Amino acid sequence: MQFEILHTSKKSRARVGRIHTPHGIIDTPNFVAVGTNGTLKALSNELVDAIGLQLMFCNTYHLMLQPGTDIVRQAGGLHSFIKRRQPLITDSGGFQVFSLAYGSVHDELKSRGKKKTGGGVLKIDEEGVTFRSYRDGRKILLTPESSVQAQKDLGADIIIPFDELPPYHIEKEELKVSLARTHRWEKRSLEAHLTSPKDQAMYGVIHGGVDHDLRKQSCRLLTDLPFDGFAIGGSVGKTSRELCDLIAFTRPHLPDERPNHLLGIGDIPSIEALIPLGIDTFDSSYPTKAARHGLLFSKSGGVKILQRKHANRFEPIDPCCECPTCQIHTAAYLHHLFKAKEVTSLALATVHNLYYMVHLMREIREGIGYDLI
Amino acid sequence: MQFEILHTSKKSRARVGRIHTPHGIIDTPNFVAVGTNGTLKALSNELVDAIGLQLMFCNTYHLMLQPGTDIVRQAGGLHSFIKRRQPLITDSGGFQVFSLAYGSVHDELKSRGKKKTGGGVLKIDEEGVTFRSYRDGRKILLTPESSVQAQKDLGADIIIPFDELPPYHIEKEELKVSLARTHRWEKRSLEAHLTSPKDQAMYGVIHGGVDHDLRKQSCRLLTDLPFDGFAIGGSVGKTSRELCDLIAFTRPHLPDERPNHLLGIGDIPSIEALIPLGIDTFDSSYPTKAARHGLLFSKSGGVKILQRKHANRFEPIDPCCECPTCQIHTAAYLHHLFKAKEVTSLALATVHNLYYMVHLMREIREGIGYDLI
Repeated sequence: MQFEILHTSKKSRARVGRIHTPHGIIDTPNFVAVGTNGTLKALSNELVDAIGLQLMFCNTYHLMLQPGTDIVRQAGGLHSFIKRRQPLITDSGGFQVFSLAYGSVHDELKSRGKKKTGGGVLKIDEEGVTFRSYRDGRKILLTPESSVQAQKDLGADIIIPFDELPPYHIEKEELKVSLARTHRWEKRSLEAHLTSPKDQAMYGVIHGGVDHDLRKQSCRLLTDLPFDGFAIGGSVGKTSRELCDLIAFTRPHLPDERPNHLLGIGDIPSIEALIPLGIDTFDSSYPTKAARHGLLFSKSGGVKILQRKHANRFEPIDPCCECPTCQIHTAAYLHHLFKAKEVTSLALATVHNLYYMVHLMREIREGIGYDLI
Repeated sequence: MQFEILHTSKKSRARVGRIHTPHGIIDTPNFVAVGTNGTLKALSNELVDAIGLQLMFCNTYHLMLQPGTDIVRQAGGLHSFIKRRQPLITDSGGFQVFSLAYGSVHDELKSRGKKKTGGGVLKIDEEGVTFRSYRDGRKILLTPESSVQAQKDLGADIIIPFDELPPYHIEKEELKVSLARTHRWEKRSLEAHLTSPKDQAMYGVIHGGVDHDLRKQSCRLLTDLPFDGFAIGGSVGKTSRELCDLIAFTRPHLPDERPNHLLGIGDIPSIEALIPLGIDTFDSSYPTKAARHGLLFSKSGGVKILQRKHANRFEPIDPCCECPTCQIHTAAYLHHLFKAKEVTSLALATVHNLYYMVHLMREIREGIGYDLI
């Protein structure tokens, strides 16, 4: 992997770059769509390629359990298995395993810190995490080494070291202990990776929750290691203000010459606020999930396609949009398909939002090029 | 509409023909896929056009309730609303209304004639059927005239007169009464249609259940009327033997120079058995529904894609198949998508079975051309 910075804005920390991977270029800043099981929900990977999504995020945890990384390895890796031509990134599986233990960040924020009852997690110790597969009940030990091995089998262009995801509601002392372990696990992951790099890049994951000191410490420690780039993970705050403050603080502690990624954030206001702070890539299932719930993106605000006013709107969702859906179909037809709960609606809506994100990012890159952002 | 017979087999009653419609040609014999709400489930209509499906069946009952035929009329008709270029056929809505009253034929056969408790049907009399919309609770009176008006609003190339669907388990005397009313309703439908034909063709529906005398009587009466073609409807038997006997008996009572259609039958063994008896077109949701349940068609028998043996089958579902799915994806990937319950699986599988049907029918037409069928 090679990272090339084409332009840095005169107005902000925003920069336009290109990540060169074995499966092609990722222009930055960019949006990374989530195809958990090796597919964006409702779309074929050929169509996703055609829309121009340059990086797709798949989840190692899910792929370990189904179909199993051995199957993917036998298929010649994830690109070959799912027939995707462009770059892929996989995570370590840690996020999902710890979400099992603590509930998702969203659940946790809603439940105000009351811990869930452990999900399928049986044991967490220095070695790793033992959990029970929700598919077939077998015990699985996920360690830095086994996570990296799984990601070698998958063969994504960018991989992620195994980390601990501490809950949002945590005392500073506990967070410190977790952070220290995460750093040891990431180092072990990197070592495992470097014994057989196989053209894959590994991004170190900066932790430290919403504690600035710990974030700084995490940046210092991890940026000393030969990671190819950095992801910002863990709890990044529960309000956009907290998120922006945290990124504004953390980003300057990351090296400019290596690409960075913000894990799990991809709503448009956040993207627009964080690119000027110097974030290169964002992954989120939000745009595709919103589509499936009938929220369609447009420059003039989101279109809630189930609203009655669209029943006889015989023009595209967004008359300026050039996506395959808007080039052919009307808001009225989409409204009808959603009302009739036709599964076709999911594909047509997802195409629209995905295209929107791809083109929004292109415009943002142009804006940075002209120092407007 | 014009029907042209290109060749009649020397071996059977099978014939190859062409139905010319305002939206293009339907080669016969052919399979007609069902897109109840104006879409084949999980597929975009552009893709369906591209696969070469020449006739798609939409259900007036569903479209009346959602989005409403007034919306479709405002959109310029169903072709324009759903962006389908090729021919469409709609039914009268009668089948669904009477299914509400009696349960589906399948339910009825399973329940051995115990009538359901009326569904949403409030009244059936000479005028028509009054039922309650399952969507918004409003009362709707469906009559021959209102069904035809709805089908004028939809504007399909081929439309169907309003008929009564008697239950399979019915005494002959009751069936006679029903048949007489159906004939009166069909005549009213035809009259309503002919006041403003609008380039639409109407197929009379032959009824009479499994009673040969009544079928013959229905053929005599309806073929005297200026219908453009004929559909065989009502109960056609509960075994394939009964079905074949009924078609073998009925078909010679239909005029060769007008096209005929068998309503609701589309499994491959039936199609292969009935084409030599002279049936031109078949509609059924079976191939697309089978796909969604993971049963994929192939020359060497159906592939149950959820079976474990496909988990590592890194070749197409059917190595000889040239469908868009088999050209790109492996059985292993489809198996995975089905196991992971990914909605993408529905589209990929439906594409395969639809392509299979389109090409099977092409082969059958060739076979007839060479007098092999």
